[in-house]
Amino acid sequence: MNAEELFRSIQKKRSYLCIGLDTDYNKIPRFLLDKEYPIFEFNRHIIDATEDLAVAFKPNLAFYESMGAAGLMSLEMTINYIRRHYPDIFIIADAKRGDIGNSSKMYANAYFRTLDFDAVTVSPYMGYDSIQPFLECRGKWAIILALTSNEGSKDFQQQQAAEGQPFYIMVIRKALEWGHVNNMMFVIGATKAEEMKEVRRIIPEHFLLVPGVGEQGGVLEDVAKYGMNDRCGLIVNAGRSIIYADGTNKFEKVARDQAIMLQQAMEKTLRDRHLI
Amino acid sequence: MNAEELFRSIQKKRSYLCIGLDTDYNKIPRFLLDKEYPIFEFNRHIIDATEDLAVAFKPNLAFYESMGAAGLMSLEMTINYIRRHYPDIFIIADAKRGDIGNSSKMYANAYFRTLDFDAVTVSPYMGYDSIQPFLECRGKWAIILALTSNEGSKDFQQQQAAEGQPFYIMVIRKALEWGHVNNMMFVIGATKAEEMKEVRRIIPEHFLLVPGVGEQGGVLEDVAKYGMNDRCGLIVNAGRSIIYADGTNKFEKVARDQAIMLQQAMEKTLRDRHLI
Repeated sequence: MNAEELFRSIQKKRSYLCIGLDTDYNKIPRFLLDKEYPIFEFNRHIIDATEDLAVAFKPNLAFYESMGAAGLMSLEMTINYIRRHYPDIFIIADAKRGDIGNSSKMYANAYFRTLDFDAVTVSPYMGYDSIQPFLECRGKWAIILALTSNEGSKDFQQQQAAEGQPFYIMVIRKALEWGHVNNMMFVIGATKAEEMKEVRRIIPEHFLLVPGVGEQGGVLEDVAKYGMNDRCGLIVNAGRSIIYADGTNKFEKVARDQAIMLQQAMEKTLRDRHLI
Repeated sequence: MNAEELFRSIQKKRSYLCIGLDTDYNKIPRFLLDKEYPIFEFNRHIIDATEDLAVAFKPNLAFYESMGAAGLMSLEMTINYIRRHYPDIFIIADAKRGDIGNSSKMYANAYFRTLDFDAVTVSPYMGYDSIQPFLECRGKWAIILALTSNEGSKDFQQQQAAEGQPFYIMVIRKALEWGHVNNMMFVIGATKAEEMKEVRRIIPEHFLLVPGVGEQGGVLEDVAKYGMNDRCGLIVNAGRSIIYADGTNKFEKVARDQAIMLQQAMEKTLRDRHLI
Protein backbone atom coordinates (compact mmCIF):
# COMPACT_ATOMS: atom_id res chain seq x y z
CA MET A 1 0.00 0.00 0.00
CA ASN A 2 1.45 3.41 -0.94
CA ALA A 3 0.70 6.83 0.56
CA GLU A 4 -1.97 7.65 -2.03
CA GLU A 5 -3.80 4.37 -1.37
CA LEU A 6 -3.62 5.01 2.34
CA PHE A 7 -5.13 8.46 1.84
CA ARG A 8 -7.94 6.95 -0.25
CA SER A 9 -8.62 4.42 2.50
CA ILE A 10 -8.80 7.30 5.00
CA GLN A 11 -11.27 9.17 2.77
CA LYS A 12 -13.40 6.10 2.29
CA LYS A 13 -13.60 5.26 5.98
CA ARG A 14 -13.66 8.91 7.10
CA SER A 15 -11.14 7.85 9.68
CA TYR A 16 -7.41 7.77 10.26
CA LEU A 17 -7.74 5.52 13.26
CA CYS A 18 -5.26 2.77 14.02
CA ILE A 19 -6.27 0.28 16.68
CA GLY A 20 -3.42 -0.94 18.85
CA LEU A 21 -3.66 -4.65 19.53
CA ASP A 22 -1.71 -4.58 22.81
CA THR A 23 -3.38 -7.82 23.74
CA ASP A 24 -2.63 -8.88 27.31
CA TYR A 25 -3.65 -12.32 28.51
CA ASN A 26 -4.39 -10.85 31.95
CA LYS A 27 -6.74 -8.19 30.63
CA ILE A 28 -8.96 -9.99 28.14
CA PRO A 29 -12.44 -11.18 29.21
CA ARG A 30 -12.19 -14.35 31.29
CA PHE A 31 -14.59 -16.40 29.18
CA LEU A 32 -12.12 -16.31 26.27
CA LEU A 33 -9.47 -18.13 28.26
CA ASP A 34 -11.11 -21.50 27.53
CA LYS A 35 -10.31 -21.13 23.82
CA GLU A 36 -7.25 -22.77 22.32
CA TYR A 37 -5.86 -19.37 21.21
CA PRO A 38 -7.48 -16.80 23.52
CA ILE A 39 -5.29 -13.94 22.29
CA PHE A 40 -6.24 -14.58 18.70
CA GLU A 41 -9.91 -15.00 19.65
CA PHE A 42 -9.88 -11.64 21.40
CA ASN A 43 -8.19 -9.94 18.44
CA ARG A 44 -10.59 -11.49 15.98
CA HIS A 45 -13.59 -10.15 17.86
CA ILE A 46 -12.07 -6.66 18.17
CA ILE A 47 -11.15 -6.64 14.47
CA ASP A 48 -14.60 -7.76 13.34
CA ALA A 49 -16.22 -5.13 15.56
CA THR A 50 -14.09 -2.19 14.41
CA GLU A 51 -12.62 -2.87 10.95
CA ASP A 52 -14.97 -0.41 9.19
CA LEU A 53 -13.89 2.37 11.56
CA ALA A 54 -10.12 1.91 11.34
CA VAL A 55 -7.60 2.13 8.50
CA ALA A 56 -4.92 0.21 10.40
CA PHE A 57 -4.29 -2.29 13.16
CA LYS A 58 -1.08 -2.31 15.14
CA PRO A 59 -0.14 -5.41 17.12
CA ASN A 60 2.49 -4.58 19.72
CA LEU A 61 5.12 -7.31 19.55
CA ALA A 62 6.02 -7.03 23.24
CA PHE A 63 2.67 -8.49 24.24
CA TYR A 64 2.94 -11.48 21.90
CA GLU A 65 6.57 -12.22 22.75
CA SER A 66 5.77 -12.25 26.44
CA MET A 67 3.77 -15.41 25.77
CA GLY A 68 6.53 -17.23 23.91
CA ALA A 69 5.93 -19.35 20.82
CA ALA A 70 2.17 -19.55 21.54
CA GLY A 71 2.03 -15.75 21.45
CA LEU A 72 3.74 -15.67 18.08
CA MET A 73 1.26 -18.20 16.82
CA SER A 74 -1.64 -15.94 17.86
CA LEU A 75 0.07 -13.03 16.13
CA GLU A 76 0.46 -14.99 12.91
CA MET A 77 -3.20 -16.05 13.03
CA THR A 78 -4.26 -12.43 13.64
CA ILE A 79 -2.39 -11.13 10.62
CA ASN A 80 -3.66 -13.93 8.39
CA TYR A 81 -7.19 -13.26 9.60
CA ILE A 82 -6.98 -9.56 8.69
CA ARG A 83 -5.42 -10.32 5.29
CA ARG A 84 -8.11 -12.85 4.42
CA HIS A 85 -11.14 -10.86 5.55
CA TYR A 86 -10.13 -7.20 5.32
CA PRO A 87 -7.50 -6.85 2.59
CA ASP A 88 -7.59 -3.03 2.58
CA ILE A 89 -6.37 -2.76 6.21
CA PHE A 90 -2.84 -1.48 6.82
CA ILE A 91 -1.02 -3.67 9.39
CA ILE A 92 1.78 -2.25 11.50
CA ALA A 93 4.24 -4.28 13.57
CA ASP A 94 4.95 -2.15 16.61
CA ALA A 95 8.36 -3.65 17.21
CA LYS A 96 10.78 -0.71 17.56
CA ARG A 97 13.57 -2.81 16.09
CA GLY A 98 16.99 -1.75 14.83
CA ASP A 99 20.26 -3.67 14.68
CA ILE A 100 23.37 -3.97 12.48
CA GLY A 101 22.46 -4.42 8.82
CA ASN A 102 22.81 -8.18 8.79
CA SER A 103 20.40 -8.53 11.73
CA SER A 104 17.97 -5.81 10.63
CA LYS A 105 17.66 -7.74 7.38
CA MET A 106 16.51 -10.73 9.42
CA TYR A 107 13.98 -8.55 11.25
CA ALA A 108 12.72 -7.27 7.89
CA ASN A 109 12.33 -10.90 6.80
CA ALA A 110 10.49 -11.65 10.04
CA TYR A 111 7.91 -8.88 9.59
CA PHE A 112 7.61 -8.55 5.83
CA ARG A 113 7.99 -12.19 4.70
CA THR A 114 7.42 -14.66 7.52
CA LEU A 115 4.65 -12.36 8.75
CA ASP A 116 2.86 -10.21 6.19
CA PHE A 117 2.99 -6.80 7.89
CA ASP A 118 2.84 -3.59 5.83
CA ALA A 119 5.05 -1.59 8.15
CA VAL A 120 7.31 -1.89 11.17
CA THR A 121 8.32 0.69 13.75
CA VAL A 122 12.10 1.08 14.01
CA SER A 123 14.47 2.81 16.41
CA PRO A 124 17.00 5.16 14.78
CA TYR A 125 19.76 4.94 17.40
CA MET A 126 22.06 2.72 15.31
CA GLY A 127 21.83 4.84 12.15
CA TYR A 128 21.21 4.30 8.45
CA ASP A 129 22.41 0.72 8.02
CA SER A 130 20.05 -0.41 10.80
CA ILE A 131 17.05 1.08 8.94
CA GLN A 132 18.01 0.47 5.30
CA PRO A 133 16.96 -3.21 5.17
CA PHE A 134 13.39 -2.23 6.10
CA LEU A 135 13.28 0.46 3.40
CA GLU A 136 14.46 -1.89 0.69
CA CYS A 137 11.32 -4.07 0.75
CA ARG A 138 9.05 -3.03 -2.08
CA GLY A 139 5.62 -1.82 -0.94
CA LYS A 140 6.62 -1.95 2.74
CA TRP A 141 7.27 0.83 5.23
CA ALA A 142 9.68 1.70 8.03
CA ILE A 143 8.15 3.93 10.69
CA ILE A 144 10.99 5.70 12.46
CA LEU A 145 10.75 6.73 16.13
CA ALA A 146 11.22 10.48 16.28
CA LEU A 147 9.46 12.04 19.28
CA THR A 148 7.68 9.48 21.42
CA SER A 149 4.77 10.01 23.80
CA ASN A 150 6.47 8.87 27.01
CA GLU A 151 8.16 10.87 29.78
CA GLY A 152 11.55 9.43 28.84
CA SER A 153 11.47 11.25 25.50
CA LYS A 154 13.02 14.13 27.49
CA ASP A 155 16.18 12.16 28.19
CA PHE A 156 17.56 12.17 24.66
CA GLN A 157 15.00 12.97 21.96
CA GLN A 158 14.33 16.44 23.29
CA GLN A 159 17.91 17.21 24.23
CA GLN A 160 19.84 19.69 22.20
CA ALA A 161 21.96 18.28 19.38
CA ALA A 162 24.24 20.11 16.97
CA GLU A 163 23.12 23.55 15.73
CA GLY A 164 20.67 24.02 18.56
CA GLN A 165 18.06 21.65 17.19
CA PRO A 166 16.55 18.95 19.37
CA PHE A 167 17.83 15.47 18.71
CA TYR A 168 14.56 14.15 17.26
CA ILE A 169 14.65 16.88 14.60
CA MET A 170 18.15 15.77 13.68
CA VAL A 171 16.83 12.21 13.35
CA ILE A 172 14.07 13.35 10.98
CA ARG A 173 16.44 15.44 8.85
CA LYS A 174 18.94 12.62 8.59
CA ALA A 175 16.29 10.03 7.75
CA LEU A 176 15.20 12.10 4.76
CA GLU A 177 18.44 10.98 3.10
CA TRP A 178 17.37 7.33 3.45
CA GLY A 179 13.78 7.00 2.30
CA HIS A 180 10.82 8.77 0.74
CA VAL A 181 7.12 9.49 1.31
CA ASN A 182 6.14 6.02 0.13
CA ASN A 183 8.35 3.92 2.38
CA MET A 184 8.99 5.99 5.48
CA MET A 185 6.81 7.46 8.25
CA PHE A 186 7.68 8.96 11.61
CA VAL A 187 6.35 8.39 15.11
CA ILE A 188 5.38 11.60 16.90
CA GLY A 189 3.50 11.12 20.17
CA ALA A 190 0.06 12.72 20.56
CA THR A 191 1.28 14.26 23.81
CA LYS A 192 3.66 16.33 21.68
CA ALA A 193 1.07 17.89 19.36
CA GLU A 194 2.55 21.40 19.39
CA GLU A 195 5.94 20.13 18.29
CA MET A 196 4.22 18.86 15.13
CA LYS A 197 4.21 22.42 13.82
CA GLU A 198 8.00 22.36 13.53
CA VAL A 199 7.95 18.76 12.31
CA ARG A 200 5.57 19.71 9.49
CA ARG A 201 7.98 22.43 8.36
CA ILE A 202 10.60 19.75 7.75
CA ILE A 203 8.37 16.92 6.50
CA PRO A 204 5.18 18.45 5.09
CA GLU A 205 4.28 15.32 3.15
CA HIS A 206 5.25 12.27 5.21
CA PHE A 207 2.72 10.28 7.16
CA LEU A 208 3.03 10.48 10.94
CA LEU A 209 2.08 7.59 13.20
CA VAL A 210 0.70 9.19 16.34
CA PRO A 211 0.28 7.06 19.46
CA GLY A 212 -0.75 8.39 22.85
CA VAL A 213 -4.38 9.45 22.32
CA GLY A 214 -6.55 8.08 25.14
CA GLU A 215 -4.74 6.43 28.07
CA GLN A 216 -1.62 8.54 27.60
CA GLY A 217 -3.50 11.85 27.48
CA GLY A 218 -2.98 13.13 23.92
CA VAL A 219 -5.80 15.24 22.44
CA LEU A 220 -7.02 14.36 18.95
CA GLU A 221 -8.04 17.89 17.96
CA ASP A 222 -4.56 19.21 18.77
CA VAL A 223 -2.96 16.44 16.73
CA ALA A 224 -5.20 17.29 13.76
CA LYS A 225 -4.56 21.03 14.16
CA TYR A 226 -0.77 20.77 14.10
CA GLY A 227 -0.12 17.50 12.30
CA MET A 228 -2.64 17.14 9.48
CA ASN A 229 -1.55 17.88 5.92
CA ASP A 230 -3.40 18.03 2.60
CA ARG A 231 -3.47 14.21 2.30
CA CYS A 232 -4.32 13.82 5.98
CA GLY A 233 -0.80 12.54 6.71
CA LEU A 234 -1.86 11.09 10.04
CA ILE A 235 -2.47 7.64 11.45
CA VAL A 236 -3.61 8.07 15.03
CA ASN A 237 -3.39 5.06 17.30
CA ALA A 238 -5.61 4.20 20.23
CA GLY A 239 -5.10 0.90 21.97
CA ARG A 240 -6.04 0.27 25.57
CA SER A 241 -8.83 2.88 25.60
CA ILE A 242 -10.63 0.89 22.91
CA ILE A 243 -9.76 -2.76 23.39
CA TYR A 244 -10.05 -2.83 27.20
CA ALA A 245 -13.05 -0.48 27.46
CA ASP A 246 -15.06 -3.39 28.82
CA GLY A 247 -14.17 -6.75 30.34
CA THR A 248 -17.46 -8.60 29.94
CA ASN A 249 -19.00 -10.54 27.07
CA LYS A 250 -20.08 -7.16 25.67
CA PHE A 251 -16.46 -6.13 25.10
CA GLU A 252 -16.77 -5.99 21.31
CA LYS A 253 -19.81 -3.72 21.46
CA VAL A 254 -18.14 -1.33 23.93
CA ALA A 255 -14.89 -1.36 21.94
CA ARG A 256 -16.91 -0.47 18.85
CA ASP A 257 -18.60 2.40 20.69
CA GLN A 258 -15.21 3.77 21.70
CA ALA A 259 -13.92 3.44 18.14
CA ILE A 260 -17.04 5.19 16.79
CA MET A 261 -16.41 8.16 19.06
CA LEU A 262 -12.87 8.51 17.74
CA GLN A 263 -13.94 7.94 14.14
CA GLN A 264 -16.59 10.66 14.42
CA ALA A 265 -14.11 13.11 15.92
CA MET A 266 -11.70 12.25 13.09
CA GLU A 267 -14.42 12.67 10.47
CA LYS A 268 -15.06 16.17 11.78
CA THR A 269 -11.37 17.13 11.50
CA LEU A 270 -11.24 15.76 7.95
CA ARG A 271 -14.33 17.76 7.00
CA ASP A 272 -12.92 20.93 8.55
CA ARG A 273 -9.92 20.56 6.23
CA HIS A 274 -12.13 19.72 3.24
CA LEU A 275 -10.39 16.38 2.82
CA ILE A 276 -13.69 14.49 2.56
CA MET B 1 24.48 -13.77 38.29
CA ASN B 2 26.12 -10.59 39.62
CA ALA B 3 29.29 -8.85 38.44
CA GLU B 4 31.50 -10.62 40.95
CA GLU B 5 30.21 -14.06 39.90
CA LEU B 6 30.76 -13.14 36.28
CA PHE B 7 34.35 -12.16 37.04
CA ARG B 8 34.88 -15.47 38.85
CA SER B 9 33.53 -17.34 35.84
CA ILE B 10 35.95 -15.39 33.63
CA GLN B 11 38.86 -16.31 35.90
CA LYS B 12 37.86 -19.95 36.00
CA LYS B 13 37.52 -20.27 32.24
CA ARG B 14 40.40 -17.88 31.48
CA SER B 15 38.10 -16.39 28.93
CA TYR B 16 35.67 -13.51 28.50
CA LEU B 17 34.30 -14.90 25.28
CA CYS B 18 30.64 -14.67 24.37
CA ILE B 19 29.51 -16.76 21.43
CA GLY B 20 26.84 -15.14 19.28
CA LEU B 21 24.18 -17.61 18.22
CA ASP B 22 23.14 -15.76 15.06
CA THR B 23 21.77 -19.00 13.73
CA ASP B 24 20.65 -18.74 10.12
CA TYR B 25 18.72 -21.60 8.54
CA ASN B 26 20.49 -20.90 5.23
CA LYS B 27 23.97 -21.15 6.70
CA ILE B 28 23.90 -24.23 8.90
CA PRO B 29 25.28 -27.55 7.56
CA ARG B 30 22.80 -29.17 5.19
CA PHE B 31 22.66 -32.51 6.99
CA LEU B 32 21.01 -30.85 9.99
CA LEU B 33 18.00 -29.78 7.95
CA ASP B 34 16.45 -33.25 8.28
CA LYS B 35 16.06 -32.78 12.04
CA GLU B 36 12.76 -31.62 13.51
CA TYR B 37 14.41 -28.50 15.00
CA PRO B 38 17.53 -27.88 12.88
CA ILE B 39 18.25 -24.50 14.48
CA PHE B 40 18.21 -25.99 17.95
CA GLU B 41 20.30 -28.97 16.80
CA PHE B 42 22.92 -26.64 15.39
CA ASN B 43 22.99 -24.54 18.57
CA ARG B 44 23.22 -27.62 20.77
CA HIS B 45 26.27 -28.88 18.89
CA ILE B 46 27.97 -25.47 19.01
CA ILE B 47 27.23 -25.11 22.71
CA ASP B 48 28.56 -28.59 23.59
CA ALA B 49 31.70 -27.94 21.56
CA THR B 50 32.51 -24.55 23.09
CA GLU B 51 30.90 -24.19 26.54
CA ASP B 52 34.20 -24.60 28.42
CA LEU B 53 35.75 -21.78 26.39
CA ALA B 54 32.97 -19.21 26.73
CA VAL B 55 31.39 -17.41 29.69
CA ALA B 56 28.30 -16.39 27.73
CA PHE B 57 26.10 -17.23 24.77
CA LYS B 58 24.13 -14.57 22.95
CA PRO B 59 21.24 -15.63 20.71
CA ASN B 60 20.31 -12.82 18.32
CA LEU B 61 16.53 -12.58 18.34
CA ALA B 62 16.33 -11.34 14.74
CA PHE B 63 17.40 -14.74 13.45
CA TYR B 64 14.84 -16.67 15.48
CA GLU B 65 11.98 -14.27 14.74
CA SER B 66 12.64 -14.54 11.02
CA MET B 67 11.49 -18.16 11.30
CA GLY B 68 8.24 -17.36 13.10
CA ALA B 69 6.84 -19.49 15.92
CA ALA B 70 9.13 -22.43 15.02
CA GLY B 71 12.14 -20.13 15.47
CA LEU B 72 10.94 -19.09 18.91
CA MET B 73 10.53 -22.74 19.80
CA SER B 74 14.18 -23.41 18.85
CA LEU B 75 15.22 -20.41 20.93
CA GLU B 76 13.33 -21.69 23.96
CA MET B 77 14.87 -25.14 23.56
CA THR B 78 18.34 -23.59 23.28
CA ILE B 79 17.99 -21.63 26.51
CA ASN B 80 16.57 -24.60 28.38
CA TYR B 81 19.41 -26.76 27.09
CA ILE B 82 22.06 -24.34 28.37
CA ARG B 83 20.31 -23.97 31.74
CA ARG B 84 20.07 -27.73 32.22
CA HIS B 85 23.59 -28.68 31.16
CA TYR B 86 25.72 -25.59 31.81
CA PRO B 87 24.17 -23.61 34.67
CA ASP B 88 27.16 -21.26 35.05
CA ILE B 89 26.75 -19.81 31.54
CA PHE B 90 25.48 -16.22 31.22
CA ILE B 91 22.78 -15.97 28.53
CA ILE B 92 22.16 -12.70 26.69
CA ALA B 93 19.12 -11.92 24.54
CA ASP B 94 20.45 -9.72 21.77
CA ALA B 95 17.13 -8.01 21.19
CA LYS B 96 17.84 -4.24 21.24
CA ARG B 97 14.38 -3.58 22.63
CA GLY B 98 12.94 -0.41 24.14
CA ASP B 99 9.37 0.86 24.25
CA ILE B 100 7.04 2.82 26.54
CA GLY B 101 7.10 1.48 30.10
CA ASN B 102 4.01 -0.65 29.79
CA SER B 103 5.43 -2.42 26.69
CA SER B 104 9.01 -2.66 27.96
CA LYS B 105 7.58 -4.44 30.98
CA MET B 106 6.12 -7.02 28.60
CA TYR B 107 9.50 -7.40 26.87
CA ALA B 108 11.13 -7.87 30.28
CA ASN B 109 8.56 -10.59 30.99
CA ALA B 110 9.30 -12.17 27.61
CA TYR B 111 13.06 -12.42 28.21
CA PHE B 112 13.33 -12.81 31.96
CA ARG B 113 10.26 -14.95 32.76
CA THR B 114 8.86 -16.67 29.67
CA LEU B 115 12.46 -17.22 28.55
CA ASP B 116 15.12 -17.47 31.22
CA PHE B 117 17.74 -15.03 29.90
CA ASP B 118 20.18 -13.30 32.25
CA ALA B 119 20.41 -10.10 30.24
CA VAL B 120 18.87 -8.28 27.32
CA THR B 121 20.32 -5.61 25.05
CA VAL B 122 18.20 -2.43 25.01
CA SER B 123 18.11 0.72 22.90
CA PRO B 124 18.22 3.98 24.88
CA TYR B 125 16.40 6.22 22.38
CA MET B 126 13.13 6.36 24.34
CA GLY B 127 14.75 7.21 27.67
CA TYR B 128 14.57 6.03 31.27
CA ASP B 129 11.04 4.63 31.40
CA SER B 130 11.81 2.39 28.41
CA ILE B 131 14.79 0.85 30.28
CA GLN B 132 13.54 0.84 33.88
CA PRO B 133 11.39 -2.33 33.59
CA PHE B 134 14.48 -4.33 32.60
CA LEU B 135 16.48 -2.97 35.55
CA GLU B 136 13.79 -3.84 38.07
CA CYS B 137 14.14 -7.61 37.64
CA ARG B 138 16.27 -8.99 40.46
CA GLY B 139 19.44 -10.72 39.29
CA LYS B 140 18.87 -9.68 35.66
CA TRP B 141 20.70 -7.16 33.49
CA ALA B 142 19.95 -4.49 30.91
CA ILE B 143 22.77 -3.99 28.41
CA ILE B 144 22.37 -0.50 26.95
CA LEU B 145 23.49 0.32 23.41
CA ALA B 146 26.08 3.08 23.64
CA LEU B 147 28.55 3.02 20.74
CA THR B 148 27.82 0.24 18.26
CA SER B 149 30.21 -1.40 15.82
CA ASN B 150 28.38 -0.52 12.59
CA GLU B 151 28.96 2.32 10.12
CA GLY B 152 25.64 3.91 11.05
CA SER B 153 26.94 4.68 14.55
CA LYS B 154 28.24 7.89 12.93
CA ASP B 155 24.74 9.13 12.19
CA PHE B 156 23.69 9.85 15.77
CA GLN B 157 25.81 8.12 18.42
CA GLN B 158 28.98 9.93 17.39
CA GLN B 159 27.31 13.27 16.71
CA GLN B 160 27.88 16.11 19.07
CA ALA B 161 25.30 16.57 21.82
CA ALA B 162 25.13 19.22 24.53
CA GLU B 163 28.42 20.42 26.06
CA GLY B 164 30.47 19.15 23.17
CA GLN B 165 30.28 15.50 24.16
CA PRO B 166 29.28 12.83 21.66
CA PHE B 167 25.77 11.54 22.02
CA TYR B 168 26.79 8.06 23.18
CA ILE B 169 28.69 9.61 26.10
CA MET B 170 25.56 11.49 27.05
CA VAL B 171 23.67 8.18 26.98
CA ILE B 172 26.20 6.56 29.33
CA ARG B 173 26.18 9.50 31.75
CA LYS B 174 22.40 9.60 31.86
CA ALA B 175 22.08 5.84 32.31
CA LEU B 176 24.24 6.03 35.43
CA GLU B 177 21.21 7.64 37.12
CA TRP B 178 19.13 4.53 36.37
CA GLY B 179 21.11 1.45 37.32
CA HIS B 180 24.29 0.16 38.91
CA VAL B 181 27.23 -2.16 38.24
CA ASN B 182 25.17 -5.24 39.03
CA ASN B 183 22.24 -4.66 36.70
CA MET B 184 23.57 -2.55 33.84
CA MET B 185 26.21 -3.02 31.14
CA PHE B 186 26.95 -1.06 27.97
CA VAL B 187 27.53 -2.10 24.37
CA ILE B 188 30.70 -0.63 22.87
CA GLY B 189 31.70 -2.05 19.49
CA ALA B 190 35.15 -3.63 19.10
CA THR B 191 35.69 -1.40 16.08
CA LYS B 192 35.65 1.55 18.52
CA ALA B 193 38.39 0.31 20.86
CA GLU B 194 40.14 3.68 21.24
CA GLU B 195 36.94 5.36 22.36
CA MET B 196 36.91 2.94 25.29
CA LYS B 197 39.61 5.05 26.94
CA GLU B 198 37.11 7.89 27.40
CA VAL B 199 34.33 5.43 28.26
CA ARG B 200 36.45 3.95 31.05
CA ARG B 201 36.94 7.41 32.55
CA ILE B 202 33.16 7.64 33.01
CA ILE B 203 32.37 4.03 33.87
CA PRO B 204 35.53 2.42 35.27
CA GLU B 205 33.61 -0.46 36.85
CA HIS B 206 30.74 -1.46 34.55
CA PHE B 207 30.93 -4.46 32.30
CA LEU B 208 31.06 -3.73 28.57
CA LEU B 209 29.58 -6.06 26.01
CA VAL B 210 31.83 -5.80 22.97
CA PRO B 211 30.63 -7.15 19.64
CA GLY B 212 32.48 -6.77 16.37
CA VAL B 213 35.57 -8.94 16.84
CA GLY B 214 36.06 -11.18 13.81
CA GLU B 215 33.77 -10.57 10.80
CA GLN B 216 33.36 -6.89 11.62
CA GLY B 217 37.08 -6.23 11.98
CA GLY B 218 37.58 -5.38 15.66
CA VAL B 219 40.93 -6.33 17.21
CA LEU B 220 40.87 -8.17 20.54
CA GLU B 221 44.17 -6.80 21.84
CA ASP B 222 42.98 -3.22 21.31
CA VAL B 223 39.75 -3.95 23.13
CA ALA B 224 41.70 -5.41 26.08
CA LYS B 225 44.15 -2.52 26.07
CA TYR B 226 41.54 0.23 26.27
CA GLY B 227 38.54 -1.53 27.78
CA MET B 228 39.75 -3.97 30.43
CA ASN B 229 39.45 -3.02 34.10
CA ASP B 230 40.62 -4.67 37.32
CA ARG B 231 37.71 -7.19 37.25
CA CYS B 232 38.13 -7.74 33.51
CA GLY B 233 34.92 -5.78 32.83
CA LEU B 234 34.64 -7.17 29.31
CA ILE B 235 32.45 -9.69 27.54
CA VAL B 236 33.66 -9.94 23.97
CA ASN B 237 31.34 -11.46 21.43
CA ALA B 238 32.24 -13.41 18.32
CA GLY B 239 29.48 -14.96 16.28
CA ARG B 240 29.77 -15.74 12.61
CA SER B 241 33.58 -16.19 12.70
CA ILE B 242 33.05 -19.11 15.10
CA ILE B 243 29.73 -20.72 14.31
CA TYR B 244 30.05 -20.62 10.51
CA ALA B 245 33.78 -21.37 10.33
CA ASP B 246 32.92 -24.66 8.60
CA GLY B 247 29.84 -25.95 6.81
CA THR B 248 30.51 -29.68 6.88
CA ASN B 249 29.89 -32.38 9.48
CA LYS B 250 33.10 -31.19 11.14
CA PHE B 251 31.55 -27.83 11.96
CA GLU B 252 31.68 -28.35 15.74
CA LYS B 253 35.37 -29.22 15.68
CA VAL B 254 36.23 -26.19 13.54
CA ALA B 255 34.03 -23.90 15.65
CA ARG B 256 35.86 -25.18 18.74
CA ASP B 257 39.24 -24.47 17.11
CA GLN B 258 38.15 -20.90 16.39
CA ALA B 259 36.90 -20.47 19.95
CA ILE B 260 40.19 -21.87 21.33
CA MET B 261 42.16 -19.28 19.38
CA LEU B 262 40.10 -16.48 20.89
CA GLN B 263 40.17 -18.02 24.38
CA GLN B 264 43.96 -18.29 24.24
CA ALA B 265 44.33 -14.70 23.11
CA MET B 266 41.99 -13.67 25.95
CA GLU B 267 43.92 -15.73 28.47
CA LYS B 268 47.08 -13.87 27.48
CA THR B 269 45.43 -10.46 28.02
CA LEU B 270 44.13 -11.59 31.42
CA ARG B 271 47.61 -12.77 32.42
CA ASP B 272 49.19 -9.54 31.26
CA ARG B 273 46.89 -7.70 33.67
CA HIS B 274 47.52 -10.23 36.45
CA LEU B 275 43.82 -11.07 36.62
CA ILE B 276 44.48 -14.81 36.56
